[in-house]
Amino acid sequence: MNEPFLSVETVDQVIAELRIPDPGQATIREIVALVNGVEARSGVKYVRMEMGVPGLKPAQVGIDAEVEALRRGVASIYPMVDGIPELKQEAARFIRSFMDVEIEPAACIPAVGSMQATYAAFMAAGYTDKRKDTALFIDPGFPVQKQQMMVMGLKYETFDVFEWRGPRLREKLECYFSKGNIHSVIYSNPNNPTWICLTEEELQIIGELSAKYDVIVMEDLAYFGMDFRKDLYSPGRPPFQPTVARYTDLFILFISSSKIFSYAGQRIAVMALSPRLFKREYADLKERFRCTTFGNTITQRILYALTSGAGHTSQYALAAMFRAASNGEFNFVEEVKEYGEKARVMKRLFTDNGFYIVYDSDLGDPIGDGFYFTVGYPGMTGAQLVHNLLYFGISAIGLKNTGSDREGIRACVSHVRRDQFPDLEDRLGRFNSFYRNRK
Amino acid sequence: MNEPFLSVETVDQVIAELRIPDPGQATIREIVALVNGVEARSGVKYVRMEMGVPGLKPAQVGIDAEVEALRRGVASIYPMVDGIPELKQEAARFIRSFMDVEIEPAACIPAVGSMQATYAAFMAAGYTDKRKDTALFIDPGFPVQKQQMMVMGLKYETFDVFEWRGPRLREKLECYFSKGNIHSVIYSNPNNPTWICLTEEELQIIGELSAKYDVIVMEDLAYFGMDFRKDLYSPGRPPFQPTVARYTDLFILFISSSKIFSYAGQRIAVMALSPRLFKREYADLKERFRCTTFGNTITQRILYALTSGAGHTSQYALAAMFRAASNGEFNFVEEVKEYGEKARVMKRLFTDNGFYIVYDSDLGDPIGDGFYFTVGYPGMTGAQLVHNLLYFGISAIGLKNTGSDREGIRACVSHVRRDQFPDLEDRLGRFNSFYRNRK
Repeated sequence: MNEPFLSVETVDQVIAELRIPDPGQATIREIVALVNGVEARSGVKYVRMEMGVPGLKPAQVGIDAEVEALRRGVASIYPMVDGIPELKQEAARFIRSFMDVEIEPAACIPAVGSMQATYAAFMAAGYTDKRKDTALFIDPGFPVQKQQMMVMGLKYETFDVFEWRGPRLREKLECYFSKGNIHSVIYSNPNNPTWICLTEEELQIIGELSAKYDVIVMEDLAYFGMDFRKDLYSPGRPPFQPTVARYTDLFILFISSSKIFSYAGQRIAVMALSPRLFKREYADLKERFRCTTFGNTITQRILYALTSGAGHTSQYALAAMFRAASNGEFNFVEEVKEYGEKARVMKRLFTDNGFYIVYDSDLGDPIGDGFYFTVGYPGMTGAQLVHNLLYFGISAIGLKNTGSDREGIRACVSHVRRDQFPDLEDRLGRFNSFYRNRK
Repeated sequence: MNEPFLSVETVDQVIAELRIPDPGQATIREIVALVNGVEARSGVKYVRMEMGVPGLKPAQVGIDAEVEALRRGVASIYPMVDGIPELKQEAARFIRSFMDVEIEPAACIPAVGSMQATYAAFMAAGYTDKRKDTALFIDPGFPVQKQQMMVMGLKYETFDVFEWRGPRLREKLECYFSKGNIHSVIYSNPNNPTWICLTEEELQIIGELSAKYDVIVMEDLAYFGMDFRKDLYSPGRPPFQPTVARYTDLFILFISSSKIFSYAGQRIAVMALSPRLFKREYADLKERFRCTTFGNTITQRILYALTSGAGHTSQYALAAMFRAASNGEFNFVEEVKEYGEKARVMKRLFTDNGFYIVYDSDLGDPIGDGFYFTVGYPGMTGAQLVHNLLYFGISAIGLKNTGSDREGIRACVSHVRRDQFPDLEDRLGRFNSFYRNRK
């Protein structure tokens, strides 16, 4: 067992052909291309954990509604830029049912995925106040959101939250906010990639400081309800999805259909603005957008210029999924629980073979099991680990890509099938034998 | 017949409530809101010509393909950012069949409408060369493309082409290009709003100057094949859609499904880059995008950051519509000819009642009949005409909104039903009696 599982030559050849300078630091898409190349050449199927993509079937209630809208001829009609009334109402109702938060339907705005929603929000927020030119990311996080900032030419700062959990978060945030240059703060909850779940106490700190320093809070709920330690499918009753919306009146929530409804292909999400932010006038918006109201800048200026609205039939799909969920007829949390159950097994396969969980605790509790987990191997940097695992038929991305201070990899469970667990176990065993003997 | 058709008080009340400072200069969306308001209050249905939206049913071949993709479960899978292979191939084939131009499938890239495609193209082109910071619009044109520039904070210049047709175009373009600050030139053909169709001679001038001054040509083909004076539905045989692609190797074509396939709701289009531009390295792109290849900057940097690709099932729809058209099974030109036929009648109703066609000639020939036409009324500015027509139950937008130097309005035929022609005739008659007597 003292050699890699795959031909080193084959892997290195593909790396060279794709001109990837350091596979350990490669982007998700570079890893995808690399693994596709090696799989094609070697015939070996990787255990693929690099992509954060759904591994389940799309929600049938969405498909049925979308087919019905297509049959009705909706495809010829431009969608309203701020969304069809049905989706706006059902989004507001979904937020009420599962978050216990009141948002006006007018302020629930569909977008072409949360990707477009954050792009539009970053752009508007970036021009609200000339003295505030910087966004703050509570990291680790989703790498593409920083690419959005790069493409727009906007500034950001970032810190790794792991050492600043609980009451310490106040100190860290205040140190940034008090400089006066931060217009907004962004985080995902549950967190991609660590699966840390910010608590009500932490969200309260973020909310209070948002009010104190007039900072917009952007809460990315891509994994809405997926902290499986609680059953968050209880429409209209607690427990509710934790949210900063209880603690500030200056927020944007991003709710994507991609993961919770396995509807990633249709690029449909909703952004929900707090009543105050939706109507708020920012005089400085005028220079860039000839409009001073935050909500109108988002819809009439930015979303209109980006794509003139989100796909019309997909809006009906999302409205139907929200409606069925709020009606108690569609337990979307139950449907995605499989991710958590796979994570539990996969984490054990790693830790049984010399690996350790990098972000292992959630304020004293063991980290939950969800869509992602993070692992490291003694004596290896994250980049080395990504690279070395490639020779053993396992692919992932390095944590450094996500704004983490720590060494390790992000593993996504969604595309690993249960029938691949024996392969994973075998390959991790080989990996451990190989490197354990080298130490 | 000496008073307006509608209550002046009602119209003025809605104008005041919507805080529209001057209805004559209102945007399309402001006019829409205004007319919706007056219709609701007065019970009178307007003859609505302000929106450039399809008025036909969506192409059935697209709907069938999209339904089939939905049934197959495609909705859960992220689309590849540069598009599904099927669409890329069919787009290249469509361009070969109806334009007689060769583009690699790799360089045919779907986008969330031509709106997203031009946004991405303007952004990339705007950073190709530090010495070139300005785009040039050959106007009149689509107002929202300038809004895109505003949102991105990019510069543009513009001129009205009407006085610069034929060989004179060379002189005018050279006057801009020779300054050295122009990175790209944009026009639509057939033209929104004038329905001017640039000739092969004019396209050759644009192409030659593009090569001479290293300027990217962006050709918006939203109304592909809709110069009904020729039958452009002849797959693989002349006559072909005129295009600059014959005269330069530095171009981007924008082909939208919205008008030609009446598929506006699904926000799906294709941009096709010339082989040279697709692969071209621009060193200055690196600073903004950490990427120097034009094609990769568009896909991996910009489209990825904007929406992570275009809706998955809509890509299958567009592929199917392109395929059927190239196969000779779907005469999309025939389907939209109704617009030209309505334009012919509507123009006569206007000219019979004291109006004149503003952009009346196309290099000596009478202007063609298509999706839009332009009309003026003696002694009135375009803004006055828009405003005054509102009291007679007719809505349109002012030509000044489109970058025109001339006084008049843009009229879109698509949403006027043939059974409204008697209303239109009656209202134009009342309008003419009212104003003719005032002179």
